[in-house]
Amino acid sequence: MRFIQKLKKAIAKNNSLLCIGLDPDLKKLPNSLTKSIDSVLEFNRRIIEATHNFICAYKLNSAFYEALGPKGFEILKATIELIPKDIPVILDSKRGDIDSSNEMYARSAFIEFGADSITVNPYLGVEPLKPFTKFRDKFIFVLILTSNPGAFDFQYVKCKGKFLFQRVSEKFVNLSNVGFVVGATRGKDIKLVREVSDEKLFLIPGIGAQKGSLELALKYGVNKDKVALINVGRAIIYASNSSDFAQKAKEKAIEFKEKINKILAQL
Amino acid sequence: MRFIQKLKKAIAKNNSLLCIGLDPDLKKLPNSLTKSIDSVLEFNRRIIEATHNFICAYKLNSAFYEALGPKGFEILKATIELIPKDIPVILDSKRGDIDSSNEMYARSAFIEFGADSITVNPYLGVEPLKPFTKFRDKFIFVLILTSNPGAFDFQYVKCKGKFLFQRVSEKFVNLSNVGFVVGATRGKDIKLVREVSDEKLFLIPGIGAQKGSLELALKYGVNKDKVALINVGRAIIYASNSSDFAQKAKEKAIEFKEKINKILAQL
Repeated sequence: MRFIQKLKKAIAKNNSLLCIGLDPDLKKLPNSLTKSIDSVLEFNRRIIEATHNFICAYKLNSAFYEALGPKGFEILKATIELIPKDIPVILDSKRGDIDSSNEMYARSAFIEFGADSITVNPYLGVEPLKPFTKFRDKFIFVLILTSNPGAFDFQYVKCKGKFLFQRVSEKFVNLSNVGFVVGATRGKDIKLVREVSDEKLFLIPGIGAQKGSLELALKYGVNKDKVALINVGRAIIYASNSSDFAQKAKEKAIEFKEKINKILAQL
Repeated sequence: MRFIQKLKKAIAKNNSLLCIGLDPDLKKLPNSLTKSIDSVLEFNRRIIEATHNFICAYKLNSAFYEALGPKGFEILKATIELIPKDIPVILDSKRGDIDSSNEMYARSAFIEFGADSITVNPYLGVEPLKPFTKFRDKFIFVLILTSNPGAFDFQYVKCKGKFLFQRVSEKFVNLSNVGFVVGATRGKDIKLVREVSDEKLFLIPGIGAQKGSLELALKYGVNKDKVALINVGRAIIYASNSSDFAQKAKEKAIEFKEKINKILAQL
């Protein structure tokens, strides 16, 4: 099934725009689990079991798996296999290279690891993304405006009245199966990206630990169908440090889901 | 040993600025090897054995290993372990994320995989690179001007008389243990990056299969010590499709090394 259909079904079924960031950090695993690589899969399994009825997607940040060495990639693959088939999986690996290398990255993400979607970096331009977009059932999220302080270095370079991030979003706006990553910490500036397109799907990280505003993220981030992916990671998966971590993650997920729906209802 | 010392020693010992791109593609393995994942390590082993006395570094493009799935990362690690300890290893993975994720990418590249250096993407700015640069023995190459056609989309956005790639290079110029990636296909424009610093080490891909000019790459790419890393991949490792592939790769490597030295002598 195409990513977009799968996502729409998951949103409808669970009545949720919440995406959980499954980014396991060995140091932060609950005390009830041994701090070993093998615990990571167990941790993910229990978080998925507890939360999959309250979310519309999982986002796996590749960095957290790569930090575990070759074994980490086995866990990444095994985690994706654990996720119910009706929930779309975004591999948040921010890849970006010339086309012949992107061919390999696309094969890796979509075929080897079985992800439904991938995040990519725009610095090398539009042309090298073809190896990703040619997978018509998959979906690509391009980094447009990031949640970190360094975003101001280049994304905000202003030229002829326009920020670079606006220019970047304009270049990708006509590509199908392509959405945008826009950090929640950017608040009102999210609107500048939304003005480029009222259709594009936004993936919005930066809620929770990074303290972005959920209200502004939704107000400016949803498209004309009132859809956006609101990602929360640490604030949910590490909601408790004890043996009740899965239950607490579930409660936090429900809390975020309801908070999102309440704000949506007022838009 | 610090990356820079290791590199200088390798350059002096082998009298070479050639860096080989070890980017194994299953489909392109010589006919004398079975087209299986296990052959990849054998292919790399024979290329390394045949060429390590004629080069100053190996660059491994992560994409080609990731395309092989979890097993690919074992091969990546095993390949790095095969490389003689006096030859620096650049992990060309073009990573780039917020600082907490880059912490994980740095741990992966430098600790888990044992690389001496990594390539990174500048789109998220200077601040998130700290997790990489805090490894004082390691080295970071920032993408500045890439070899692909899409480079024109954003890297060449001109603002107040300056291209974005010039702005990017200026932002990173004062960071130590940081060099620049500049594509050989950019010809004379390499000079614009060199003007930002006469000291920075450039890693220059795009020679060989991508047909960048070796003359211009050296003329504008070397620093005041007449050093730059000239990367050649496909034109060397796939010099022959038969059982003599390692011997042919060696001959090609020597050919490139001598071509580089001849041009250098005339600068």
